[in-house]
Amino acid sequence: MPISLGELATRFGCELIGDPDIEIRNVASLPKAGPEDLTFLSNTGFKEQLPSTKAGAVILREQDAADSPVAVIIHDDPYACYARMAAVVHPEPEYAPGIHSSAVVHETASVAESAHLAASVVVGERSRIGENVYIGPGTVVGPDCVVGDDCRFVANVTLARKVRIGVRGIFHPGVVLGSDGFGNAMTAEGWVKVPQLGGVRIGDDVEIGANTTIDCGALDDTVIEDGVRIDNLCMIAHNVHIGAHTALAAMVGIAGSTRIGKRCLFAGQTGTVGHIEVCDDVIVGAKTFLSKGVTEPGTYVASFPAVPAKAWAKQLARFRRLGTLVDRVGKLEKSGK
Amino acid sequence: MPISLGELATRFGCELIGDPDIEIRNVASLPKAGPEDLTFLSNTGFKEQLPSTKAGAVILREQDAADSPVAVIIHDDPYACYARMAAVVHPEPEYAPGIHSSAVVHETASVAESAHLAASVVVGERSRIGENVYIGPGTVVGPDCVVGDDCRFVANVTLARKVRIGVRGIFHPGVVLGSDGFGNAMTAEGWVKVPQLGGVRIGDDVEIGANTTIDCGALDDTVIEDGVRIDNLCMIAHNVHIGAHTALAAMVGIAGSTRIGKRCLFAGQTGTVGHIEVCDDVIVGAKTFLSKGVTEPGTYVASFPAVPAKAWAKQLARFRRLGTLVDRVGKLEKSGK
Amino acid sequence: MPISLGELATRFGCELIGDPDIEIRNVASLPKAGPEDLTFLSNTGFKEQLPSTKAGAVILREQDAADSPVAVIIHDDPYACYARMAAVVHPEPEYAPGIHSSAVVHETASVAESAHLAASVVVGERSRIGENVYIGPGTVVGPDCVVGDDCRFVANVTLARKVRIGVRGIFHPGVVLGSDGFGNAMTAEGWVKVPQLGGVRIGDDVEIGANTTIDCGALDDTVIEDGVRIDNLCMIAHNVHIGAHTALAAMVGIAGSTRIGKRCLFAGQTGTVGHIEVCDDVIVGAKTFLSKGVTEPGTYVASFPAVPAKAWAKQLARFRRLGTLVDRVGKLEKSGK
Repeated sequence: MPISLGELATRFGCELIGDPDIEIRNVASLPKAGPEDLTFLSNTGFKEQLPSTKAGAVILREQDAADSPVAVIIHDDPYACYARMAAVVHPEPEYAPGIHSSAVVHETASVAESAHLAASVVVGERSRIGENVYIGPGTVVGPDCVVGDDCRFVANVTLARKVRIGVRGIFHPGVVLGSDGFGNAMTAEGWVKVPQLGGVRIGDDVEIGANTTIDCGALDDTVIEDGVRIDNLCMIAHNVHIGAHTALAAMVGIAGSTRIGKRCLFAGQTGTVGHIEVCDDVIVGAKTFLSKGVTEPGTYVASFPAVPAKAWAKQLARFRRLGTLVDRVGKLEKSGK
Repeated sequence: MPISLGELATRFGCELIGDPDIEIRNVASLPKAGPEDLTFLSNTGFKEQLPSTKAGAVILREQDAADSPVAVIIHDDPYACYARMAAVVHPEPEYAPGIHSSAVVHETASVAESAHLAASVVVGERSRIGENVYIGPGTVVGPDCVVGDDCRFVANVTLARKVRIGVRGIFHPGVVLGSDGFGNAMTAEGWVKVPQLGGVRIGDDVEIGANTTIDCGALDDTVIEDGVRIDNLCMIAHNVHIGAHTALAAMVGIAGSTRIGKRCLFAGQTGTVGHIEVCDDVIVGAKTFLSKGVTEPGTYVASFPAVPAKAWAKQLARFRRLGTLVDRVGKLEKSGK
Repeated sequence: MPISLGELATRFGCELIGDPDIEIRNVASLPKAGPEDLTFLSNTGFKEQLPSTKAGAVILREQDAADSPVAVIIHDDPYACYARMAAVVHPEPEYAPGIHSSAVVHETASVAESAHLAASVVVGERSRIGENVYIGPGTVVGPDCVVGDDCRFVANVTLARKVRIGVRGIFHPGVVLGSDGFGNAMTAEGWVKVPQLGGVRIGDDVEIGANTTIDCGALDDTVIEDGVRIDNLCMIAHNVHIGAHTALAAMVGIAGSTRIGKRCLFAGQTGTVGHIEVCDDVIVGAKTFLSKGVTEPGTYVASFPAVPAKAWAKQLARFRRLGTLVDRVGKLEKSGK
């Protein structure tokens, strides 16, 4: 959507240095941006790219303004400002309200008039779809779900049942919400399934990545608070509670009944055991295993970076002989007496 | 489904101490249960919650009965007893037999009259669907599949082809069965695909979690024996064989042709190499890597618990200097002579 | 498809020793093959199975020919030769061109006449589907996608938007292409979504395993070059670039903007950080964490094989006391002076 620099600056209350009539039609990276593109300088490591930019305008911090050969929009947090302005320049496509003829809505379900249900969408018993919701093709909303206003389900998402979602949520393809938790009781005859009777409760402004699964609770709900961001292929087990504005990168697994605080960051391929509590503001490094609760904010890690295979084989051998080394040192200490 | 305590006790052959006419309408946890709720005490760590419970009845072991202020059902394994009774109190919804008008069944396929096929279900060439099977919306059953009686596919499940399933299986959304194994032959011109011609054979009473994938075999079948439980986002590669009653927690990967015994437990994010054999009754700890076969029952582990990042950096530096330390100790030993 | 040995040998330019009129109807493993089956001997470890085979013919290297009791096809690379011949004996099923009545194709999309669109397929705005493409049931092709000739989407695949695919690609169930990258800017009010505006570009002859996700780029495209093979449940983040003929085993995660070279092999459950570059011909061992770029071809590893739990507990304790051990050795060195 073409928009003038002046209008952009005004809408977000930013100072503009340059011609307010410049029309922005796209966003682009600093080195690639052309005269109709908006770009930004956030990471000072890219500062050397600024003097040669051909962008229509650059969003940057006040102290960098003098080095720009083109119009600038001043903001303390250029990246966040860029994120917001980019969403104006490239808005999500709008879909006309209505239910596609191939969609199947149960007679006990309710769908707001402003919602858009695409082809092959199914909405189950007693479920309610809010205003301006977009439900992409192949998405299945099972029974007893509540979807808040302005949510967007891209395509082929599945809400098994009893999933309640706040407003403005974004759910990418393959996401599964409300699937049964992994509850099994061992008996002499084998596993007995423990009925999973809770639901999933998701706050406002939550985004869930492709093929991530969030199981329902066993008795109470699994809870995802407001503003949480979860990347692709993550697993949130039954009765987990994730605090507001926490972000999980791809392939993170949170085991059952674990409680994660607010504003935590879990890097990719991390995992936690079940039934632990992690306080607010905890960062967990990539591929790390969290085996017990965390009570102090900070960064927690336990991963070994890759090295050439031969070096690793040697290192592994030394690691395995640590006991022998300890014994040898003990002997030396004794003999020294 | 409301049911009297007396009927519950009778049906499962349990001793009841209390009024058999108490009507149970729900299940709940010990502290939250009210007069119409059934609950249980299994983990003795929660025993202190018993005297103040307001439940309609508590399932517990004989020795705990005296401490209950309310009716009790006596069972040696309260959790398993609870699991079975909860399934009676909260039965799966029943679906009327029939095929939704938007479902597409190939003319060479057969579907039992008692089966329910929901919206947008597809059943392919020569596939057979058994009695009382529930196939949820968006599920695709490809060609040459056999689905046993009483199976349940929640929604958006995919059986690629040649998948044979026993009775009473439960398959959660996003499960993929019978996808091609990862078979590639390297040549000077790049990879050549090795046709994956086997199928997947799944026993009775198997439950597979959301977005888990089980590949078909290259020539023979991939096999999942009776009573196996697999959690979400697991990967079972081609020609794997999983023994009866084994349970895999979330995000477990079993590489090609590996054979896992009966009653094994794999914790979350574990992985095995291919072509190994793991005997019965093996437990693998979370995030552990199984690099070779296991011939002795027991617990196997190799994971490092997270520590504060600074402490880890120090520890990692020490680990990397192990060679130097070994040299230093060697020198000391020599100088001591 | 029955085919004579003579025709097979001629088609692939191989030497045949034996009756060219033998009719092959199937492929099978060396010990299981019968008179109508083609098999192969590649791994010399299985050579002892050769003298007793009952196969119709065995593909093998010249030096093994004398030991075969049955007809042989000579090839330097029996496995690759088998892969190609097996595809002739067991060709993919052919589907009549056409669009199923339940498929929904947007009026601005174009579908080649020779393409087959199965039940419940959706093709979005401005997307183009090439010749002989097979799109299996439940697959959603979002807006602005281009699918090259001879591609095959098994079932329930999702192309979110702006996905361009070369020819002969194979995409297994649950694959998600073009989902939004994980781009978020932290602000005092929580995360702000950074619009993900790039696409996904996939070369020719690429195969992607079940439930793998490939995100679109933030501004530029995520790129998968020709001949790449990706197994199930992998995660390719935004702006990743994967070089030609690289293979990723199951559950591999490549973080944002990382560039992987050509002909690399990543074993299962490996992961990389973002923004690194890995050169051509790199092998990464199972469950390994690649924390920085790689400039030398070779094998890189950092994984600990599982050991019995008690042994691990001891080893872990020693690892944690490494600092103390270093101190003790330091003391010994001092006292020795």
